Amino acid sequence: MDAFEELRDRLGEIHDLSRAAALLGWDERTMMPAAGAEARAETQATLAKVRHEMFTADEIGRLIDRVRTGPKGDAPPGESLPADLARIVARDWEKARRVPSELRAELARASSIAEGVWVEAKQRSDFGMLLPYLERNVELTHRYAECFDGFPGFSHAYDPLLDEYEPEMTTEQIRTVLVGLREGLVPLVREATENGAGPPPDPFRGDFPIDMQSELLAELVAELPFPEGSWRLDPTEHPFAISIGRGDVRLTTRYDEDNLAMALFSAMHEAGHGLYEAGVDVELRRTPLSKPRSLGLHESQSRLWENWVARSRPYLERLLPRLRERFPDSFDGVDADQLERGANRIERSLIRIEADEVTYNLHILIRFELELELFEGGLALKDMPEAWNERYRAYLGLDVPDDAHGVLQDVHWAGAAFGYFPTYSLGNVIAGQLWEAAESDLGDLDAIIGDGHLASLGEWLRDRVHRYGRRLSPTEILERAGCGELSVEPLLQHLQRRVALAAS
Amino acid sequence: MDAFEELRDRLGEIHDLSRAAALLGWDERTMMPAAGAEARAETQATLAKVRHEMFTADEIGRLIDRVRTGPKGDAPPGESLPADLARIVARDWEKARRVPSELRAELARASSIAEGVWVEAKQRSDFGMLLPYLERNVELTHRYAECFDGFPGFSHAYDPLLDEYEPEMTTEQIRTVLVGLREGLVPLVREATENGAGPPPDPFRGDFPIDMQSELLAELVAELPFPEGSWRLDPTEHPFAISIGRGDVRLTTRYDEDNLAMALFSAMHEAGHGLYEAGVDVELRRTPLSKPRSLGLHESQSRLWENWVARSRPYLERLLPRLRERFPDSFDGVDADQLERGANRIERSLIRIEADEVTYNLHILIRFELELELFEGGLALKDMPEAWNERYRAYLGLDVPDDAHGVLQDVHWAGAAFGYFPTYSLGNVIAGQLWEAAESDLGDLDAIIGDGHLASLGEWLRDRVHRYGRRLSPTEILERAGCGELSVEPLLQHLQRRVALAAS
Repeated sequence: MDAFEELRDRLGEIHDLSRAAALLGWDERTMMPAAGAEARAETQATLAKVRHEMFTADEIGRLIDRVRTGPKGDAPPGESLPADLARIVARDWEKARRVPSELRAELARASSIAEGVWVEAKQRSDFGMLLPYLERNVELTHRYAECFDGFPGFSHAYDPLLDEYEPEMTTEQIRTVLVGLREGLVPLVREATENGAGPPPDPFRGDFPIDMQSELLAELVAELPFPEGSWRLDPTEHPFAISIGRGDVRLTTRYDEDNLAMALFSAMHEAGHGLYEAGVDVELRRTPLSKPRSLGLHESQSRLWENWVARSRPYLERLLPRLRERFPDSFDGVDADQLERGANRIERSLIRIEADEVTYNLHILIRFELELELFEGGLALKDMPEAWNERYRAYLGLDVPDDAHGVLQDVHWAGAAFGYFPTYSLGNVIAGQLWEAAESDLGDLDAIIGDGHLASLGEWLRDRVHRYGRRLSPTEILERAGCGELSVEPLLQHLQRRVALAAS
Repeated sequence: MDAFEELRDRLGEIHDLSRAAALLGWDERTMMPAAGAEARAETQATLAKVRHEMFTADEIGRLIDRVRTGPKGDAPPGESLPADLARIVARDWEKARRVPSELRAELARASSIAEGVWVEAKQRSDFGMLLPYLERNVELTHRYAECFDGFPGFSHAYDPLLDEYEPEMTTEQIRTVLVGLREGLVPLVREATENGAGPPPDPFRGDFPIDMQSELLAELVAELPFPEGSWRLDPTEHPFAISIGRGDVRLTTRYDEDNLAMALFSAMHEAGHGLYEAGVDVELRRTPLSKPRSLGLHESQSRLWENWVARSRPYLERLLPRLRERFPDSFDGVDADQLERGANRIERSLIRIEADEVTYNLHILIRFELELELFEGGLALKDMPEAWNERYRAYLGLDVPDDAHGVLQDVHWAGAAFGYFPTYSLGNVIAGQLWEAAESDLGDLDAIIGDGHLASLGEWLRDRVHRYGRRLSPTEILERAGCGELSVEPLLQHLQRRVALAAS
């Protein structure tokens, strides 16, 4: 067996254990009886440990070297699978070996404890209660970042954190993009929300039996370009999507009997994530390259289906008769104009996960700026609530009444997931660029959606984005898709159209 | 860390991987999208391989030796956990190392292929089509058995096969029991089915919407002595129960809209299996001793709840008002007498899985006798259909019209699961003995069931059977429970009462 095949086999086994962990994670959040939590945590810890041991073995390093010094071992990205696999895995392997097992275990333990404390601190709106746990998280995260002293490409303390979620993107690159977004957004949100008579009536509020919602969603997801018999959709508390293996994508959504928009747009969002994972080239199966790593690209796919497709006028026009059929009390008196305005209401709010498309990114910008200041040393954790509230006043013009509606609302920092937030906005930015590129290739996407040809958009995305998995970097993928450099302009133009609709 | 703790930690990690495999297996049969099958098979194969490598490591053997030669290392069963763990794991380890990986892999591959062929052969009722695959299975199974030449306690070619499902039970022991059962059963079945006007009307046949069946079953299972929030019940094609970890038991059942008995008794059966796994002592958690191995004992628990409890007069009397409430068309005109007779109909039939309690064991006896002759060399596989049909004539007085209704009906032989069948009847035998022992401790069980005190029976079973897990052998457990030697008498007496009821 040659070095590439041997490497692929070993990585294949590690990949299989990751698939098992993925299913355990899905099950935990959708199916598991409550009393099974303790045993589940042990099982996950063992799977993580065994995978880590198998991956960081010296033999993996030797095989990588043999592939890289073998024929075509230094081919440029996209030309040789062995070279691509070895290049990307070499970086993962080097990173994995730099972090001592004890630190990894301590981070897992500390953040797991902090997540538990967060639930109670949020209920009591008591930031002080969570503070020592956040301090421990930040301290351990600093130690984690220090493991990467001199690592190629890292020059900022936040770089190693960002790299976990957005590999090979630097802090400076993302700061430039997000500052540009802020400069466009702050005045736009002011324009959208400060004049006028407030948001229009919301037709998605009403009485929607859950079994009827779930029937509708099954129909809508079945119309998306998934291979047949390759997905399922289940209810959960915090929706997510996960691929368990080829031909097996698990989508989730959350039902609210009083609010149809919750389950509908969340299912479309998760379906976008699912389509991405389902669209990876079969050649990459059972390798680490089959699992997209850039959360920015991932989020671009979910936002694209949630916002650009499902909130579009032609999609909603096709949806309306089915809404009327199932929920006549809510939709019999609603026309397409009202439905479109209802699906695109703009309203400043305190809670990120309830924010509309236009205001959403301001929530992210605030978090990104604050965590950057935290790791640059300009902000102490104890001053975080005040800094948070100040920024909400400045960017959104809102007063934060308490920490539960402010700095305590998200679990990310309790989970030590520093570096995660900016990928949400990056996803929105990329979605805008991909939409523009798709239109320039396929023609008017509104017309395509109006004809119900979602498959052609799906094929374009698969061909330009999904199939590469992790084989190419996001930058390379976007360039090949005709998007050029990162740019906030397409997103800002799109959001301006939303604001114009609301004002019309 | 002392040798016992180190051994327990290592076995704990292997146990965690088994739990992951258990969840993957459950998911495959209840939730998995069809297109995920190929990836799932790979994941399971890797989990099995990694577990096998971890378990057969030399270091495990060294740790076992250190525990056995350490303090109390040779304590008798039940007195010292380290000694019990080391004793039982030593035998597993020795067995696992005797079978070459290639043979293990070849058996897995050959039986997986044969199972695929079996589906088609059964559809076409074409035994010849399956014959070469069965021959390969038997050949590989002979090779498997040969790996145990000179293994302590094995003296018959069938012993190593039986041992996979019924550890430490010999072929001769089980033959003695099952021959005794046959001698009582053949005349009893003749008596029950040859005179009289045939079975009574069946109130469980009718029109039963599946969501209403499923609501009823959720209520009934919730009344069984499970810890709260520790189980779930899902539909599947071939019902099973599996424990994923402490506090997490998955039950399944099969719904038939025309036949309420199908889902009802199958759910009670699987709940019996689930209660067994849920009742293992917490001290044994995350060790191989927490997983009961004797299928005979396991089946005794399922049969006990399915047949001895759920088909009993007092249970059915309590059930009747709820049946009337949910399914008035079927049960308004039915009284307790008719319900009891309907739940205990006796009818000779060709298909094992549709057989009633009285005739069921004859189906098993036929399979056991035939596979014994196969491995003793007295019967050739090609002559199996004829031998099968002859035995059905002799024991059940039935003519087998074709192989689909005869030798091809079960998947077990295609799956190379030789040695499995006799454990079904062994379970019925043990259930009878345990029932008798429980009555002598608790008093009239009918009265207890009539009062709805299922918990007291549950506690007795947990205390006498469940808690030991694999720590004690079935023989030791039965002895301590007050059952003495294996005996078919309690079962035969119970079945005689069923026959008397039908004739009355």
